[in-house]
Amino acid sequence: MGRDSRHKTIEGAWCPGGAFSCGAFSCPTGRCPQEDVNVQMLKPIVWTGTALELLDQTKLPLEKDYVKCVSCRDVAEAIRTMKVRGAPAIGVSAAYGMVLAAHDADTHDKGAFVDRLKAAARDLVQARPTAVNLAWAVGKMLDVASACPDWREIPAAMERAACAMEAEDVEANRRIGRNGAELLGSPVSVLTHCNAGALATAGYGTALGVVRAAFEDGKRVHVFADETRPYLQGARLTAFELLEDGIPVTLITDSMAGYVMSLGKVDCVIVGADRIAANGDVANKIGTYSLAVLAKENGIPFYVAAPVSTLDLECPTGRDIPIEERDPREVTHVLGQRIAPEGVAVFNPAFDVTPSRYVSAIITDRGVARPPYETSLRALVG
Amino acid sequence: MGRDSRHKTIEGAWCPGGAFSCGAFSCPTGRCPQEDVNVQMLKPIVWTGTALELLDQTKLPLEKDYVKCVSCRDVAEAIRTMKVRGAPAIGVSAAYGMVLAAHDADTHDKGAFVDRLKAAARDLVQARPTAVNLAWAVGKMLDVASACPDWREIPAAMERAACAMEAEDVEANRRIGRNGAELLGSPVSVLTHCNAGALATAGYGTALGVVRAAFEDGKRVHVFADETRPYLQGARLTAFELLEDGIPVTLITDSMAGYVMSLGKVDCVIVGADRIAANGDVANKIGTYSLAVLAKENGIPFYVAAPVSTLDLECPTGRDIPIEERDPREVTHVLGQRIAPEGVAVFNPAFDVTPSRYVSAIITDRGVARPPYETSLRALVG
Repeated sequence: MGRDSRHKTIEGAWCPGGAFSCGAFSCPTGRCPQEDVNVQMLKPIVWTGTALELLDQTKLPLEKDYVKCVSCRDVAEAIRTMKVRGAPAIGVSAAYGMVLAAHDADTHDKGAFVDRLKAAARDLVQARPTAVNLAWAVGKMLDVASACPDWREIPAAMERAACAMEAEDVEANRRIGRNGAELLGSPVSVLTHCNAGALATAGYGTALGVVRAAFEDGKRVHVFADETRPYLQGARLTAFELLEDGIPVTLITDSMAGYVMSLGKVDCVIVGADRIAANGDVANKIGTYSLAVLAKENGIPFYVAAPVSTLDLECPTGRDIPIEERDPREVTHVLGQRIAPEGVAVFNPAFDVTPSRYVSAIITDRGVARPPYETSLRALVG
Repeated sequence: MGRDSRHKTIEGAWCPGGAFSCGAFSCPTGRCPQEDVNVQMLKPIVWTGTALELLDQTKLPLEKDYVKCVSCRDVAEAIRTMKVRGAPAIGVSAAYGMVLAAHDADTHDKGAFVDRLKAAARDLVQARPTAVNLAWAVGKMLDVASACPDWREIPAAMERAACAMEAEDVEANRRIGRNGAELLGSPVSVLTHCNAGALATAGYGTALGVVRAAFEDGKRVHVFADETRPYLQGARLTAFELLEDGIPVTLITDSMAGYVMSLGKVDCVIVGADRIAANGDVANKIGTYSLAVLAKENGIPFYVAAPVSTLDLECPTGRDIPIEERDPREVTHVLGQRIAPEGVAVFNPAFDVTPSRYVSAIITDRGVARPPYETSLRALVG
């Protein structure tokens, strides 16, 4: 399948042959989730019915290549190496990974079948520990498997569930977008960090979903995109997404965000989240905490946009969220080239925790939560 | 002259043949300033008597090459392209650039001679507008030229003055180091930004001069070095300098500084300065403002280390300091490779302004200034 067939156009959304409403099985939502995205954007996640094809986000924007995952282990590796990234996108990918694990489970005993799936789930969850959507998604898939009376029903039931999860993620993002857009005036200058866009989700995006919804409402939106070292998701992915959509964007280094705020050039900060604790503390891409402090100091609202699947009400505070540390090479090298002297020690946390006192509002698919978050987040989840 | 001859060793400081106390003329300080640096470090600035050789800081730490400047225009170009950078280092380089301009001034009339020098001075000052040391140094050199009764005396007088300025910069940095080291406990964890080290000065460094002095005093010093995008002075130069000196250093991205502070891992922040206004507002490498805000929020002292030549008491506040914007390519490319999509807009200010209310103290060669800076800075210059 070539590159062009995956690139949607404004005229008609691209639809993968042989899956969703158009192929291998009937999608429970009654329509292909990929028809539901009207932005001109590459699909990060493509389920073919027998494999998961992931847009390799390590190569964007220079190359638009897909990696084909034919096993759960392939999916875990793609998540670990950040070929797919973004909390909602890795959740949906992991769900399809569980479907591939079900396809490969060589047993005719339901108990043994579910045990194989649990082993696959552990492998997936360990791939990236901070984002709760990953654990949430594989947990959902295990529930689906356990609920099947017969092991023969498990693969198809899981496939339907994964497809539904993908469709629901796009729907959730559209609701986040609508809820968030109401908070923005026009013209509005939004500063964002990392990529919480279509590429970080099944489509449309969370933080960028709010930007998109405001733009679709006719608001005059401008975005400052932090480049987001070390992995450069802002420079590589957010700038790319917004350019593709024709939404005005200015790229800055992470170190410029505070200065840009101090110049009065930012009306609000909107970021995504990898996990939100019960008290409203937010784990998100490293650098988010700094932005929140700088926003507070400059009297600028700091918004977090995420689906309720990112809430972890079992986690009392941000101190309880595991923070992944990644390979020092992400800091010492850029595009494979060394930028730092050999032998230097490196600290490379992939995320940080923003205490809830810095968060003006959490924009979810079920509404906008305001402090005190202990009660407002529980009320949203109901 | 090969690479090895410029690399000093612990046993004996390298001394350039044919200049300073060892060659072309007698240094007014009575000794070669390059003998006065006991750290094992490449010299950023080498005056040969007929040319200025500059350690190409765009290539460090991967290559240790010198560029040879035989005219004032060469020096201005090296400053503009950041082959030499750091406020004190570009001041000293510009002084030698003025000497080269004097060598090239083809006139036998003193008035015309000084006019040629003024034109050279303008070219140098325009190379980088924010750092005041550049304007300060060329102004000093013009004063030297004007004070000579005979045009024939100008080149030698300027050469002596440039040499003295280089020696005095190292001396000033040692005094800054001693004054600053008294503020540090032991063990102490210092966070720094950009490179305010030996490579940014004639030797020893300002912010890193404080670190070196504390280390020489036997204090247990650890440094967190921000990588300092877009130009990566922290990853390339500060990490390199501290590794060469055996001072423990951990490299982080700029976006990690706030998180590292929030974890309680930082005792103080020390940065250099490119210009300090009369009210204590500080222009320094982009990202400094963010660090100052984050330090305040975390109850961490924020120190600025700079020689009094960095004070601009003619400049009432930070709002009056011109902030240089540089080529967008510094943000969109790393080591010549594109990291951002073509066509994206970029904002690339090289500096920001930190209001004095965030600055705990300004460590100078004449003592430590505390708020209110309007009076304490004037008292230092006195």
